[in-house]
Amino acid sequence: MGNKIGIVMGSDSDLPVMSAAAKILDEFSVEYELTIVSAHRTPEKLFEYATSAEQRGLKLIIAGAGGAAHLPGMLASSTPLPVIGVPVKSRTLDGVDSLYSIVQMPPGVPVATVAINGALNAGLLALQILGCEDAAIREQMKKYKEDLKNIVDKKAEELEKIKYEKYLSKMQDNK
Amino acid sequence: MGNKIGIVMGSDSDLPVMSAAAKILDEFSVEYELTIVSAHRTPEKLFEYATSAEQRGLKLIIAGAGGAAHLPGMLASSTPLPVIGVPVKSRTLDGVDSLYSIVQMPPGVPVATVAINGALNAGLLALQILGCEDAAIREQMKKYKEDLKNIVDKKAEELEKIKYEKYLSKMQDNK
Amino acid sequence: MGNKIGIVMGSDSDLPVMSAAAKILDEFSVEYELTIVSAHRTPEKLFEYATSAEQRGLKLIIAGAGGAAHLPGMLASSTPLPVIGVPVKSRTLDGVDSLYSIVQMPPGVPVATVAINGALNAGLLALQILGCEDAAIREQMKKYKEDLKNIVDKKAEELEKIKYEKYLSKMQDNK
Amino acid sequence: MGNKIGIVMGSDSDLPVMSAAAKILDEFSVEYELTIVSAHRTPEKLFEYATSAEQRGLKLIIAGAGGAAHLPGMLASSTPLPVIGVPVKSRTLDGVDSLYSIVQMPPGVPVATVAINGALNAGLLALQILGCEDAAIREQMKKYKEDLKNIVDKKAEELEKIKYEKYLSKMQDNK
Amino acid sequence: MGNKIGIVMGSDSDLPVMSAAAKILDEFSVEYELTIVSAHRTPEKLFEYATSAEQRGLKLIIAGAGGAAHLPGMLASSTPLPVIGVPVKSRTLDGVDSLYSIVQMPPGVPVATVAINGALNAGLLALQILGCEDAAIREQMKKYKEDLKNIVDKKAEELEKIKYEKYLSKMQDNK
Amino acid sequence: MGNKIGIVMGSDSDLPVMSAAAKILDEFSVEYELTIVSAHRTPEKLFEYATSAEQRGLKLIIAGAGGAAHLPGMLASSTPLPVIGVPVKSRTLDGVDSLYSIVQMPPGVPVATVAINGALNAGLLALQILGCEDAAIREQMKKYKEDLKNIVDKKAEELEKIKYEKYLSKMQDNK
Amino acid sequence: MGNKIGIVMGSDSDLPVMSAAAKILDEFSVEYELTIVSAHRTPEKLFEYATSAEQRGLKLIIAGAGGAAHLPGMLASSTPLPVIGVPVKSRTLDGVDSLYSIVQMPPGVPVATVAINGALNAGLLALQILGCEDAAIREQMKKYKEDLKNIVDKKAEELEKIKYEKYLSKMQDNK
Amino acid sequence: MGNKIGIVMGSDSDLPVMSAAAKILDEFSVEYELTIVSAHRTPEKLFEYATSAEQRGLKLIIAGAGGAAHLPGMLASSTPLPVIGVPVKSRTLDGVDSLYSIVQMPPGVPVATVAINGALNAGLLALQILGCEDAAIREQMKKYKEDLKNIVDKKAEELEKIKYEKYLSKMQDNK
Repeated sequence: MGNKIGIVMGSDSDLPVMSAAAKILDEFSVEYELTIVSAHRTPEKLFEYATSAEQRGLKLIIAGAGGAAHLPGMLASSTPLPVIGVPVKSRTLDGVDSLYSIVQMPPGVPVATVAINGALNAGLLALQILGCEDAAIREQMKKYKEDLKNIVDKKAEELEKIKYEKYLSKMQDNK
Repeated sequence: MGNKIGIVMGSDSDLPVMSAAAKILDEFSVEYELTIVSAHRTPEKLFEYATSAEQRGLKLIIAGAGGAAHLPGMLASSTPLPVIGVPVKSRTLDGVDSLYSIVQMPPGVPVATVAINGALNAGLLALQILGCEDAAIREQMKKYKEDLKNIVDKKAEELEKIKYEKYLSKMQDNK
Repeated sequence: MGNKIGIVMGSDSDLPVMSAAAKILDEFSVEYELTIVSAHRTPEKLFEYATSAEQRGLKLIIAGAGGAAHLPGMLASSTPLPVIGVPVKSRTLDGVDSLYSIVQMPPGVPVATVAINGALNAGLLALQILGCEDAAIREQMKKYKEDLKNIVDKKAEELEKIKYEKYLSKMQDNK
Repeated sequence: MGNKIGIVMGSDSDLPVMSAAAKILDEFSVEYELTIVSAHRTPEKLFEYATSAEQRGLKLIIAGAGGAAHLPGMLASSTPLPVIGVPVKSRTLDGVDSLYSIVQMPPGVPVATVAINGALNAGLLALQILGCEDAAIREQMKKYKEDLKNIVDKKAEELEKIKYEKYLSKMQDNK
Repeated sequence: MGNKIGIVMGSDSDLPVMSAAAKILDEFSVEYELTIVSAHRTPEKLFEYATSAEQRGLKLIIAGAGGAAHLPGMLASSTPLPVIGVPVKSRTLDGVDSLYSIVQMPPGVPVATVAINGALNAGLLALQILGCEDAAIREQMKKYKEDLKNIVDKKAEELEKIKYEKYLSKMQDNK
Repeated sequence: MGNKIGIVMGSDSDLPVMSAAAKILDEFSVEYELTIVSAHRTPEKLFEYATSAEQRGLKLIIAGAGGAAHLPGMLASSTPLPVIGVPVKSRTLDGVDSLYSIVQMPPGVPVATVAINGALNAGLLALQILGCEDAAIREQMKKYKEDLKNIVDKKAEELEKIKYEKYLSKMQDNK
Repeated sequence: MGNKIGIVMGSDSDLPVMSAAAKILDEFSVEYELTIVSAHRTPEKLFEYATSAEQRGLKLIIAGAGGAAHLPGMLASSTPLPVIGVPVKSRTLDGVDSLYSIVQMPPGVPVATVAINGALNAGLLALQILGCEDAAIREQMKKYKEDLKNIVDKKAEELEKIKYEKYLSKMQDNK
Repeated sequence: MGNKIGIVMGSDSDLPVMSAAAKILDEFSVEYELTIVSAHRTPEKLFEYATSAEQRGLKLIIAGAGGAAHLPGMLASSTPLPVIGVPVKSRTLDGVDSLYSIVQMPPGVPVATVAINGALNAGLLALQILGCEDAAIREQMKKYKEDLKNIVDKKAEELEKIKYEKYLSKMQDNK
């Protein structure tokens, strides 16, 4: 059986944020399907999506939404699969409404919530979950973490060498 | 056709709050049905409830929930009837999570939100909505408002008469 | 009797937000009157407006205001009609002050509160309320919800077809 | 002309908080009237109160309310007298809703806001305002501040003398 | 004796906000002195300012500050005069820090707090306080309120006449 | 290979909350180890725990902490395994500090965050993750969800039968 | 020269919190003086305290206050010594007002802020600061940290041995 | 022994904020090392940094981080040296998440927290701490405070002389 992941978002306006989840799955060569499912505008589709997810071979679902963000929680209510929720920053409350609507789920129905606009982390969490059983992905994850470390180390080295004034002006130039 | 109102709540732990809506409808002799529908534990029932509400003769729905409170918004997504949402005070965030999850609905799908734990007001709002077309209810509403005024006036009168020290000790006695 | 709706706002600076309520009523061909009533600068007008609303044939009132937003609640205190409140985003507290000032009404006097800057939803809620008795409006509302669904479905279809990179660059182009 | 001050509150449930304002005026032997005026349940009385305040010889008004606290701001909208607002701690949002509803008044209509539940300070502020023209009250105010200082000094002295362990157990005993 | 008012601010970066207080006093032809006093950078000056304020003939003090805004409260601690506090919007917490630092004064030492960035209202409140004893200023204040009302009425009239689309495009043009 | 899960908490004062995670794993007959690891008091143990987790055969880690809750994020920084974070309600900020400290992780290092005090859901999420590959656990999860549904259905049925007054008094009796 | 530390608080009601700072200094056998200085009730004493602190041989000052907590910042404005601020939990805003009033100091005048009610940590921070130059204190600090670790290790060991049910009932018994 | 200070930050994106700490140490001619240490991406480096800090001759550490900001607290957990924490303003929660993650440390492990983005103050606090034993630095600190005072005095003088309109237009010109 494959490792397919479902990525859904409540509106195409969430795509600039949510695409980071797809991108990291591409980098890890993990299959996914990506679409728009609106809890409030396409509730039937939401339920079909959730109730058929397991049979369609999805391993888990990543769902992003903003404001009164019901998509992740409502998916979680209708599937035994893990659901990862991404609170998308909202226009008026800085994403606090999105965060509370996603993370504060009642006993019995969890949503694995990541940071506001944290779609990259949602993708990485999905990969870690696949990695529980898939040693190859787990190795890729270790490599990914190693790369993160190396990037920081390189920057640290340069900062120590050229000092902060020069580093700042280089940052300015690269903008 | 009747004036039946649906009152639903996410859990029976919301009943001590939500019963105030039923009580005021009782006082106005308006018919209602009251039950538990959990967005996260009984999602199918939620959808059946919402999609059948109009045909079953409901005029509008009052829905109360706490935490990541998805019930009012998900009902609103599947019915053309007005939905009144009651944010129930939650254990850890003082009801702010309930409020944001209910009020911050996206364009296209409103929920008429009342105060945290404001189930009495949800009932009154329902009555005002029925009163748009039902002059008798509108008259009852005026009478209700008149009664509120009279209660305040009487208290004011007594406070002015016996002064605050005595009034406070009487309040203490009545506890 | 007609279906006239009153739309009021505390200042003409609220008009860019509040006009969305008028626009959706125009789309549904529902009559309305739109004006400025300031709770704090024209309190007498506020009271005349509220106390005469029923006689003047209004079915309900939509009121938008920001900051210490007293307009919706003070209208509600002087009319038996339903009042829908729109918290307008404020300059310094992101609309939280507007929201709390409108939604946290005391027992006895409800305001049907929608999202911060949610004037479109205020208009839709007004239409749903009229739809309680007016089957034609209820049918329009179903059609409106169907249209919302179709728009999401179309976007979902396109996103699934052209994938996220192309979709994002098309979004960029349409800005 | 006298120095009469008006003290009003939205509900008799605010009296345990608001009585502190009356008490300090009693201590300074300044005349006041104290009553209940509800912005939402007795709006007409509110307007009569505000519009007649100046003629009835009031110098200023102290108003306390909780939740969507409209009383102080609505009084301020209908009188040229200064209005002092006391945000009363609310059941569900710890008084933040009361505070925002009172302090965030729009340009043109100020309310002099004190701390949540700060009715004693509202009374003192009223006395300071009277003291602008009344040298006797200003002298009383200096004496009051001197007394505050002396109380702190005495406690400090005792704490320094008996050390914190004994001081704490004496505090425990006095509970 | 004159009616001189002191206006102070914690930093010249507060001047764009605080100048509104000076401007309205100019309009009412009320004398004032305006300067910078920093609670944290010029604490001695702060104390001299506060302790000498009464003798120098000031009637009251308007103080604006942002962040950990200690200026209004510390002035209030050393003078029997009323102190009006203006929470200036801060760079990182939207003025909530300024508001809490100013309004949450302990029992015994009030600060009359206005809205975040509400310097115009601070000026108006000062004028209302002077108006307690000065009938001429009280008349000016009534005229000012009448003018506010007329401006709103005119705008309302125009909006009712030309409808919201035209009004919006005129607003756009005037930007 | 087994399905062992690690459950850690920052302090034994978190145990009354965190034991719910252990309990649900017991119910599903899934093996776990449970101990105390303090990010701030036993940092070395934290690192040993995290870096050895994979080799010791853990599939994933559940970590609960309150206040400046660094334990889940610091574990996540040193293991490729998924980490589930439980924000434990804190003494002074109602768990908002715990929530923000756990959920707002930077790009590259996710923590799967559940509700404040949501240890039961952390356990269920762990089971859902195991269920990605373990059909038996997935079936148990479906049964669990079915049971949740049945409990709600039964309560709803009773509430509909005996009405709210009786239901409330029965709730009262069962306290 | 000695290592004397000043501990001050705004009110004796802060003593139950602030005594933890004194206690830990006692444990480390570091000298201190402890008294009450109210920024708002004894402003002169505050200034004398701050301006004389260095000459009186104090090394640093620990200051605790609640609400509009000006004491730590105002001390910092008048002394070159480090000032550690303890935000004391307030009656109405859970200490958020105390925290913001203390931590959000403007550029130029820092206050070293610890957690809400974090007086023990204030004492430890003071000891760490003394430890910068005093190797003996630094050694005591290492020992203290070692002890913390040992306590956690012992509890962890017991929890692992007797399992969570027994541990919980022992905790219950010890209450 | 020297006075070397360690300045670390979680990411080079924090450098525009954190460089203010380095700059003020440069002005005071105090030696420092500045580098990047990520709690989440380079956890081993974090521990080496913290555990070796004392031996490497550091007197104290300044650490800046944003979001779930674990760097300052995790450094503090592994060194007896004082750690100063700078909450860096985050993209979505205005720095409240950074502040809570840094300041709300548990009993036993303090972090000396400064304002959001308050890196200059972190540097000054470091200097004050060195000044506890180094009279020369303490003298520089007094001079620094004197300079701050003089800058404010000069601005105050100019504002008093040229009045606010001219001062504002000069500010405008200097932008």
